[in-house]
Amino acid sequence: MNFKPTAPLSGFIELTPQQQRVFDECARRVAETLKTAGFAHLDLPTIERAEVLTDEENWDEIETQMYLFQKGDTKMGLRYDGTVGLARFVAGRANDLTFPFRAYQFAKNFRGERPKRGRYREFYQIDMDILGINTLSANYDAEIVAVLSKAYESCKEFIGKTQIKVGSRPFWNAMFDYLGLDAQQAREVFVLIDKKDKIGNEFIPAVYQVAGDKVDEICAVFTNGYQSFMGKTDALNAAIYELENFMYRLNIMGIQNAVIDLGIMRGHAYYTGLVFEVFLEKFPELECVGGGGRYENLTGKFGKAKIMGVGAAIGFSRMMVTLLDEGKIDLSDFKEAVDVGVLVMSDECVGLAMKVIAELRDNSIVAVPFLDIDKKFRVQMEFANKINCKFSIIIGEDEVKNNFLTLRNMKTGEQGKITLDDAVKLLIKTK
Amino acid sequence: MNFKPTAPLSGFIELTPQQQRVFDECARRVAETLKTAGFAHLDLPTIERAEVLTDEENWDEIETQMYLFQKGDTKMGLRYDGTVGLARFVAGRANDLTFPFRAYQFAKNFRGERPKRGRYREFYQIDMDILGINTLSANYDAEIVAVLSKAYESCKEFIGKTQIKVGSRPFWNAMFDYLGLDAQQAREVFVLIDKKDKIGNEFIPAVYQVAGDKVDEICAVFTNGYQSFMGKTDALNAAIYELENFMYRLNIMGIQNAVIDLGIMRGHAYYTGLVFEVFLEKFPELECVGGGGRYENLTGKFGKAKIMGVGAAIGFSRMMVTLLDEGKIDLSDFKEAVDVGVLVMSDECVGLAMKVIAELRDNSIVAVPFLDIDKKFRVQMEFANKINCKFSIIIGEDEVKNNFLTLRNMKTGEQGKITLDDAVKLLIKTK
Repeated sequence: MNFKPTAPLSGFIELTPQQQRVFDECARRVAETLKTAGFAHLDLPTIERAEVLTDEENWDEIETQMYLFQKGDTKMGLRYDGTVGLARFVAGRANDLTFPFRAYQFAKNFRGERPKRGRYREFYQIDMDILGINTLSANYDAEIVAVLSKAYESCKEFIGKTQIKVGSRPFWNAMFDYLGLDAQQAREVFVLIDKKDKIGNEFIPAVYQVAGDKVDEICAVFTNGYQSFMGKTDALNAAIYELENFMYRLNIMGIQNAVIDLGIMRGHAYYTGLVFEVFLEKFPELECVGGGGRYENLTGKFGKAKIMGVGAAIGFSRMMVTLLDEGKIDLSDFKEAVDVGVLVMSDECVGLAMKVIAELRDNSIVAVPFLDIDKKFRVQMEFANKINCKFSIIIGEDEVKNNFLTLRNMKTGEQGKITLDDAVKLLIKTK
Repeated sequence: MNFKPTAPLSGFIELTPQQQRVFDECARRVAETLKTAGFAHLDLPTIERAEVLTDEENWDEIETQMYLFQKGDTKMGLRYDGTVGLARFVAGRANDLTFPFRAYQFAKNFRGERPKRGRYREFYQIDMDILGINTLSANYDAEIVAVLSKAYESCKEFIGKTQIKVGSRPFWNAMFDYLGLDAQQAREVFVLIDKKDKIGNEFIPAVYQVAGDKVDEICAVFTNGYQSFMGKTDALNAAIYELENFMYRLNIMGIQNAVIDLGIMRGHAYYTGLVFEVFLEKFPELECVGGGGRYENLTGKFGKAKIMGVGAAIGFSRMMVTLLDEGKIDLSDFKEAVDVGVLVMSDECVGLAMKVIAELRDNSIVAVPFLDIDKKFRVQMEFANKINCKFSIIIGEDEVKNNFLTLRNMKTGEQGKITLDDAVKLLIKTK
């Protein structure tokens, strides 16, 4: 007989129980941070109409990025980010929501791309957005970056420190205007700046090819700093003021890990204001592990309401799964989550064992019994060792007759007789 | 311009933020119950190979139940329950896991069926399983039903009390043997018992058609009780002993809401022992909201290891979303989750406001600022009212100059001056 494959499909994630515990703990901390900042949890469908996911008609082409399929007459597909569903949801319920509306999503997204390090086909992303109707102050840009920074910080003991790099679309728009580049030149220089770090030495000749001598002033942004363009035009002044005001607000909120880096462009077409990306200090090789920015028009394709926002996303699987897979996160505190293993010597002892388990769990003590009572004591103790429980409770006929328990400290090997009540008290204390 | 649709696809779930908070709170409680019982969290892929999902080759037929599609040469589809993924995972890692292995999944599943009340195309199911290799004591059947019962009980204030009905495959196998039914007759009677409640008066004539006069003894199980078959054959004795021993164990664990009901069959082919289903006392019209049973062969299609188990699933979306949608859960405690709205009178006040927000959040106080400082005070207060915050903090130029805050109790309208430190202390106390 041919057995079916036991490996998941390539590009799909499967953690061990131990890895999953760390993943879940970090997810819990991030969610807590977002809730404390008043973000509502949205859990939107995984499957959306194809027309919601994309404006494209050419399926063959977009199928490399998306999972699309047809049920009856309806073309549909799997969500590839949190933005499309959010736009649809908010446009449909704009009258029921209070603006500025803040929401987060912790959801699986799906992309057809070729899997490689840190790139999965099914992955969690944590999206957070603050949305305004007709207006939304730039103050919220600072607030969301502060929240984003706190979210990563809550996982610091696992991922280390982060750095947030802040770029500005308005700055470059003002620069391209000041330099007199036409729309086509501006687009090309934009793309070159976006991949500046990747192309290295080729950056200057490539910009020269597009913009001629103006390459000098473009490079001056990176060498002399953006401040040297203060006073050149009103638009440049406004963009620089926005950037500096933003940094000032962050500073007040206690965020010290943000720096201005005008090389940060962020590819998505919908960004219109400040943009930002997050990097891990200890793991620069992971590259960008999150980011976001300001956008002017979220829901234009769904209705007339003018809804704008500032949003950020944490590439949660990208970050956590890569670090877990590469052994870069210490798992030793997450080996097992069991407080007490309950070992049962014979059929007559099962009744007391079940009573003990129920009592322990009612007191939030994690208790796992070994109920295959035909197995030798050696096998039972081996089980207790393997599940790494801190204590074991041994229940034999003597214990049943005299209504006490034998409690064993699995680390020290110490053991002694104790009543159930006292065992519960002791175990609560040592938690 | 034609706008895109804002409604989700038919059969897909979309909760309001308020509904989502109740949903999440119940999910948290269930997960906590399962963790306290030592179940490891598994988060398996949504997409599996088609050959893992089904043995069928006829896609047209199974596509009514499943979402299947093709990427390149690979046929794949979306998981429709937790069992297939678990079987694949455990078969592939049997050497790394400690048996009995206990795990739970809280995951979205997908079914192509026609949506109707309580039936969604994308829905959460909470699966829990205890797996043994070569052997697994029947004691675990009682343990998992006790855990299942506690899981529902943790949500009692929302869903009310539950009743668990316990059936037995071995009992009916023994009965059919005792009555001398052949395999085909046994199968047909099995199906009729499974839909006994639905067909009502037609049950007796239908069974008569299959089994002739033996209908009397089959009906006697429901009228005189199963005990009347004690002593008829060894197999019947064993099945009855198993049932009663099971109820005794449940009782010891403090589970009082289980009853024997031999009309419970549970359709799935893989069950081989006791089976059980869960019903809500207050909402019988929801029918079965969860269930499970014992199975002998989980991983036979994936490898040679003999892995058996007892499992249960909570139809979590089926239960929660139906009750939420029909207004059967009181949402008033979940209106909003914001402790403090922070209102800001002018641009000069934003700095202090951001400091205040950061300080509140660092103390786990949920704080939401209104930062569109060009809006009138009336609009700001309206926002605070709409987000239903318990308190608001008002920051104007006077507050900035003299370094204090104005704190307003949004319920009583009382307000007064206070320092940030004192405000934090007071807000922690009133949480």
